Amino acid sequence: MKVIEGGVTAAKGYEAAGVEAGIKYQNRKDMALVYSIAPCKVAGTFTTNVVKAAPVLWDKNIVDTAPFVQAVVVNSGIANACTGKQGMDACRAEAECAGNLLGIPAEAVLIGSTGVIGMQMPVERLTAGIEKLVAAKRPGAEAGLEAAKAIMTTDTVHKQVAVEFTVGGKKVIIGAMCKGSGMIHPNMCTMLAYVTTDAKISKEMLQKAVSRTVVDSFNMISVDGDTSTNDTMLVLANGLAENEEIAVENEDYLAFCEALDYVTKYLAKKMAGDGEGATALFETKVLHADTKENARILAKSVICSSLSKAAIFGHDCNFGRFLCALGYSGVQFDPDKVELFFEGGNKRIQVFGNGAPCKYSEEEATELLSSPEVTVYADMHMGEEEATAWGCDLSYDYVKINADYRS
Amino acid sequence: MKVIEGGVTAAKGYEAAGVEAGIKYQNRKDMALVYSIAPCKVAGTFTTNVVKAAPVLWDKNIVDTAPFVQAVVVNSGIANACTGKQGMDACRAEAECAGNLLGIPAEAVLIGSTGVIGMQMPVERLTAGIEKLVAAKRPGAEAGLEAAKAIMTTDTVHKQVAVEFTVGGKKVIIGAMCKGSGMIHPNMCTMLAYVTTDAKISKEMLQKAVSRTVVDSFNMISVDGDTSTNDTMLVLANGLAENEEIAVENEDYLAFCEALDYVTKYLAKKMAGDGEGATALFETKVLHADTKENARILAKSVICSSLSKAAIFGHDCNFGRFLCALGYSGVQFDPDKVELFFEGGNKRIQVFGNGAPCKYSEEEATELLSSPEVTVYADMHMGEEEATAWGCDLSYDYVKINADYRS
Repeated sequence: MKVIEGGVTAAKGYEAAGVEAGIKYQNRKDMALVYSIAPCKVAGTFTTNVVKAAPVLWDKNIVDTAPFVQAVVVNSGIANACTGKQGMDACRAEAECAGNLLGIPAEAVLIGSTGVIGMQMPVERLTAGIEKLVAAKRPGAEAGLEAAKAIMTTDTVHKQVAVEFTVGGKKVIIGAMCKGSGMIHPNMCTMLAYVTTDAKISKEMLQKAVSRTVVDSFNMISVDGDTSTNDTMLVLANGLAENEEIAVENEDYLAFCEALDYVTKYLAKKMAGDGEGATALFETKVLHADTKENARILAKSVICSSLSKAAIFGHDCNFGRFLCALGYSGVQFDPDKVELFFEGGNKRIQVFGNGAPCKYSEEEATELLSSPEVTVYADMHMGEEEATAWGCDLSYDYVKINADYRS
Repeated sequence: MKVIEGGVTAAKGYEAAGVEAGIKYQNRKDMALVYSIAPCKVAGTFTTNVVKAAPVLWDKNIVDTAPFVQAVVVNSGIANACTGKQGMDACRAEAECAGNLLGIPAEAVLIGSTGVIGMQMPVERLTAGIEKLVAAKRPGAEAGLEAAKAIMTTDTVHKQVAVEFTVGGKKVIIGAMCKGSGMIHPNMCTMLAYVTTDAKISKEMLQKAVSRTVVDSFNMISVDGDTSTNDTMLVLANGLAENEEIAVENEDYLAFCEALDYVTKYLAKKMAGDGEGATALFETKVLHADTKENARILAKSVICSSLSKAAIFGHDCNFGRFLCALGYSGVQFDPDKVELFFEGGNKRIQVFGNGAPCKYSEEEATELLSSPEVTVYADMHMGEEEATAWGCDLSYDYVKINADYRS
């Protein structure tokens, strides 16, 4: 497997576009289209929030029932959540408009929205935007980049990745883009992530791979503990790589999963590091936990702790907060057995062990906590399982961004 | 029942003191003593965090096994958490020192600590402080106030309350003090709360009343979602009111519970409103939930949501975030049935109903969200249960306080 340039247009047969539609933002791209020249198998996972945005309901129905899909239309600015029947009507209008222009059924068009909750969609601006998108769609890296930029909200960088690997001698590509910066505490998957592949794979195996991959990627990140109403991850597979179809859990399936895992973990980390107001990526690795699930719970508890996040922002080796967050996670353990290490800028120090603080240089600690990527290791000494979670620090700018978000 | 002046020294037979011991802070009171002239029954609840501070372990053992207690020694500045055997030794040294000076067993001395986690206690300064405390202890409101101030850390105001009521014709008083501002997400009870009463009540009934009262008071507040290692609530009852002992769940017990509930809810709200960096008390009332437990979960989910808290700070009627927080709470409900109202400064507006945004004046919404106390009502239309939770907004100062806490 190797990492290659590009994103959603990297795999064979995919086109994309990003345009300015004036949905809510002015003078920036705010609508994106991903289109496959051939019908695609589709799999997805969606928010577990009881309050599901209209596009989530639309997509979920399509993933469950439609024989194939061929396009994804996404807008930023307004989330189309908490919008009732009017919101569902907006999704249908978008899908019908795109379907007509692309010559495919409305039920082959997936819809995504991200932005302010509780605001109705400007349907005329959406359909005008879709006309522009269909006119602008084209293959190539530039088009994929445009799309990745158009789905951003408070993101400071666009997020895309692509990998190449072989399945039975055939070259297969998985490309992807995502967005996410605030209201990030995915439970199933995060905000919006779109993965395209030319792999030939059965719908069942595709869904299995998707459900598997989110557990240790998107479900292991958090920016603010708020599980969005719009979380959506979709994978489109158009089969143009012409590999023998992956239809059972064989070696080919494992190769596909490995590549997909790389893509989702890469994007998950990107999203955490670009959390609203973040100045650092804050990674927690839990080692030697008794069960995999407990390892995940412990790691997530630490990266979700406001006090731990604030300590990272302040470059303050206040390790008690990290231990405290392990302690209230709900997992039982013996604090006297836990060892805590901080790592940053290729330096690592132990700060806690044998139930008491270790001797370390505060100066060195502050220096390594000033790195753009800080890792906390919690060695539980209970078993053989481990897990990694990703978050970010809590800064003034997080507050600023979210106190003013609508204005 | 009527509210009276004072705190831990309001009930008969209680003395207190607060002194400067230089534990970590300079030039401010940082040690407190509460002393009863007569032996007390004691009940308590403690943090559910797996990582329990040494004083929590010390107190828990005493509450479980000691025949009586007569004093509480508390310090601020250092939490004596994550300090291993050395931390337990410090507790014993404190209790022995206080016991010797007061002429009571070490096992009649409860210990409390709050402040930085992961730092060892300066035992000599502690015992010197205890000598000062014992010399300074006296009855009266001023002494109680001194104690309430000495236990503060990042609190901006001291927190105490007292109520008077009658049990079988006898006047009974419950007084209390607490501290708590950051690392507040109590699970059993919050940071440090000390309640004193002259009521005559059996240990069993006292513990029952304590376990009951925390559920809808301290357990319903959150500042930052971080359940502390030190959460402790203790109630001392010395029986000097000479009422007939409360030994069963009779009318007297209910009167005691009512008074205790007032005290704990009052302090819980105070603590939430004085959350680190808070500019407003943020209350959420969930109405017509299907079960009491679900009402509590829903209310707490909203006051814990970083995005909802930031919206309150920004006076931004971004109601979708509140609905989103209800949605990810884990409670099942039909979003189309929920009605959301915002209230502040005696004004109330509906912002969501029938599955869609309501028409309201943004100007009016901003005005009421600028009140020092904002209440969000979520009417679930599912049943007859309700619950209230208290939090605070998320401000720049929360980040500032916690990025620099140790320095």
